[in-house]
Amino acid sequence: MCGTERSSHSIVSLSNGSRANLPVIDLDPGNPTVFEEYWRRMGDKCRVEIPGCDLMSYKAPTGNVCWFLLPELVEAIRGLYRVVGNAVVDERHLVVGTGSRQVFQAALYALSTPASLKPIHVVSAAPYYSSYPEETDYLCSRLYKWGGDAKQYDTNKSGAFIEVVNSPNNPDGCMRLPVVEDSFGQGKLIHDLAYYWPQFTPITSPADHHLMYFTFSKCTGHAGSRIRWALVKDREVAVKMTTYIELNSLGVSKDSQFRTAKIIELLCNDYQKFGLDVSNSFFEYGNRVMAERWKNLRDVIGRSDVFSLPTFERQYCCFLGRPSRPYPAFAWLKCKEEIEDCGSFLRGYKYRRAKREAFWS
Amino acid sequence: MCGTERSSHSIVSLSNGSRANLPVIDLDPGNPTVFEEYWRRMGDKCRVEIPGCDLMSYKAPTGNVCWFLLPELVEAIRGLYRVVGNAVVDERHLVVGTGSRQVFQAALYALSTPASLKPIHVVSAAPYYSSYPEETDYLCSRLYKWGGDAKQYDTNKSGAFIEVVNSPNNPDGCMRLPVVEDSFGQGKLIHDLAYYWPQFTPITSPADHHLMYFTFSKCTGHAGSRIRWALVKDREVAVKMTTYIELNSLGVSKDSQFRTAKIIELLCNDYQKFGLDVSNSFFEYGNRVMAERWKNLRDVIGRSDVFSLPTFERQYCCFLGRPSRPYPAFAWLKCKEEIEDCGSFLRGYKYRRAKREAFWS
Repeated sequence: MCGTERSSHSIVSLSNGSRANLPVIDLDPGNPTVFEEYWRRMGDKCRVEIPGCDLMSYKAPTGNVCWFLLPELVEAIRGLYRVVGNAVVDERHLVVGTGSRQVFQAALYALSTPASLKPIHVVSAAPYYSSYPEETDYLCSRLYKWGGDAKQYDTNKSGAFIEVVNSPNNPDGCMRLPVVEDSFGQGKLIHDLAYYWPQFTPITSPADHHLMYFTFSKCTGHAGSRIRWALVKDREVAVKMTTYIELNSLGVSKDSQFRTAKIIELLCNDYQKFGLDVSNSFFEYGNRVMAERWKNLRDVIGRSDVFSLPTFERQYCCFLGRPSRPYPAFAWLKCKEEIEDCGSFLRGYKYRRAKREAFWS
Repeated sequence: MCGTERSSHSIVSLSNGSRANLPVIDLDPGNPTVFEEYWRRMGDKCRVEIPGCDLMSYKAPTGNVCWFLLPELVEAIRGLYRVVGNAVVDERHLVVGTGSRQVFQAALYALSTPASLKPIHVVSAAPYYSSYPEETDYLCSRLYKWGGDAKQYDTNKSGAFIEVVNSPNNPDGCMRLPVVEDSFGQGKLIHDLAYYWPQFTPITSPADHHLMYFTFSKCTGHAGSRIRWALVKDREVAVKMTTYIELNSLGVSKDSQFRTAKIIELLCNDYQKFGLDVSNSFFEYGNRVMAERWKNLRDVIGRSDVFSLPTFERQYCCFLGRPSRPYPAFAWLKCKEEIEDCGSFLRGYKYRRAKREAFWS
């Protein structure tokens, strides 16, 4: 469900792994184990080894603003964008965080003004990612507070704001632009590009924003490592984000940074060695898996007159070098008008095994 | 320096690694690389390997309140307390966090009351760990705020409070008990036992508190992994701490949890196999290194009439099976009265190489 409002939509995750033992579809937030099989096939190539005496320090041997960021990870991430072409990485500061939530909150901290008399409003266009409100408000900060739907936000009445632009958007899969009318230049933007990878959506151009972030979880499926990173144009913002992460957790797991760097490096090497003809390389594999899951889901939904799914146009994907459709990691499932709460309706419904298998196997 | 007050004390870290290239002593917070050499000698025994397809999920296959806590880590931590005997671990919930700061803030969140009209005061007896005030206040939360020196706290005037009891205390190395007079039962306690390990202080009895936490950084020196854990008696508090970590970073690096479990397991195996006669086992090694550093430091300070160091009594250490002295990872260095700021004085002083070597080599 989106935000705190009732709705006749529900989110179905398409990025979970096998659910053979579950009696119903799990409508909890997705756990992106969908790509596990790919990494299993890679075998020893992507095995990471860490000697007991390595990575013991809080610090990293780096000249970065983000003092706990491993240089191997910087190199790997820069290489990844050069291969995929989904973001401008030159002249950007890299800030690494523990998962998407820490980086989101670091951005809120960096873009709010401690000396301000009242908290700055944080908004996003509905339907927005269901966790944004709680992630913003759980500590009842005087720096920022959740302000709801960006489309309803009135700058004349409510003043300064931070707009979160999630693109492709979770839950509806649409590509997004900012929506708040900012006549007086009171707005600051955060671009949450967690799903802007070729397995989920066509890469139409390199994203080029002041503050944008990505996550290892969604890029390769390694959610357990909790690695997200931000690309930040303004040095002062990068410094403040680093300060937040320093105060929040005194850095980010070096083990996970190291593993992330190794896995990204492997992924890039495949492309650099063989080019885009490598049909078993990660993003092609991921794109095929997601296409297959969407095909299965659309087949099942097509047999029902209760549900419908959003439709997406083909676009040319610069990375795949061919037209492709969005295959979001989630489906924004719409119920007929008379069903007030699509989530409860689904939970109460006894799926036959054949149908469940069409979703998950 | 302690808190925000000026003082004629300064903290010198004794847990840093070699500083051969530094022209002066680094008075920044310590980086506990002191035990790197031990882990280097362990070689392949403590090397950790992670296949590319492992540890990909957000979740852990666990029945714990803390749903992202790896079962291997639970077993390892319980085994560690059985070996060292420094805390009661039975009938406690384990909550894992990213570093000490996340667990500290999770505890503040869990012990404060969202519905309360005003923030609860967080206090600790001076001299307290210099980061507590900033860690408490950087988000300007309405849930809690820093209240200063616990010895000055008046419950009649100021009401409910959370007292942080850091024992052994950073910076002065003393064992601590709560100090606020709590006639009306308005207080809640957090026991920060980061340094309650046999290399730093005699283990006199198993700590037995409602909410106590420890850290992998200080236990073995692996600060880069950012693993801290809390032992929590009250289920509801453990649930709320887990909620905080979920909202803050959606769990904790599985790679680091896995590595922590393996290293602790190795450490415990040595003790279980050979008992306490193993003079090269980790805690004995650590205790010898710290004793040697304190001897060198006391030799140097003894030659000066400007500085003095705290003295500590011997106590029987149940773990080592013999009397031992505290050897804190930091030294609470006192300057003569006429020196107003010991830190600035030290920074401005040109150390001769011979003296520096006495500290660091």
